[in-house]
Amino acid sequence: MATPDQIRAAVDSYVELFPTEQDAWLELFAADAQVEDPVGSPLRSGRDEIGAFWQESHAMADSIRLERTGPVRVAGNEAAFPMQVHPVVGGTAFVMDVIDVMSFDDDGRITSLRAFWDPAEMRPANG
Amino acid sequence: MATPDQIRAAVDSYVELFPTEQDAWLELFAADAQVEDPVGSPLRSGRDEIGAFWQESHAMADSIRLERTGPVRVAGNEAAFPMQVHPVVGGTAFVMDVIDVMSFDDDGRITSLRAFWDPAEMRPANG
Repeated sequence: MATPDQIRAAVDSYVELFPTEQDAWLELFAADAQVEDPVGSPLRSGRDEIGAFWQESHAMADSIRLERTGPVRVAGNEAAFPMQVHPVVGGTAFVMDVIDVMSFDDDGRITSLRAFWDPAEMRPANG
Repeated sequence: MATPDQIRAAVDSYVELFPTEQDAWLELFAADAQVEDPVGSPLRSGRDEIGAFWQESHAMADSIRLERTGPVRVAGNEAAFPMQVHPVVGGTAFVMDVIDVMSFDDDGRITSLRAFWDPAEMRPANG
């Protein structure tokens, strides 16, 4: 089983790499990982579909930055953490509150990700 | 489907009622709800077993207070939120970081709860 330290390091890499490093970010996932982001949207299965998800997310925004806003809660081979997502769209900065829930394989790779957020709650960063 | 407002109200009631109001707290759950607290521990199924979980939690502490530390992230009929749990054990105040993930039925009752936290991370509140 992945150790809590491995899991925390994977989460920190996820947050750091998401903005601009698609290839290194995809390497954080197991080959057959599943992503549901946001919860309720169609599952993305495997690195090809998860890469397409990354492309779509970045196509909608000039840039997207992630900021972890509290400790990673590790429970066995799973973890949850709170963050704010900071997209810039058409030159305007927005912010969204998100909680990601992930599970990990023995190598510390992400096997599933579920992201809890509501698109209706996106708001201007200075609003 | 429960509305986001119903879900947020149920979470606030959960946090408020847990310390001392066992019966009202149990009423927040659907009759066949499942609780996994912490994630990785045996499932508690139905109000009788969930009530036993409440009893066990409170038997271990002089008191337990919950404090939500960020917004409730609603996604469809599910939600996640960060909190700190403040148990007092043997006269000493401790604190733990927790994220709860819940799903809800059409009436806004909790149908499942998974609590992400690591007992090894419990620490004195002033430590």
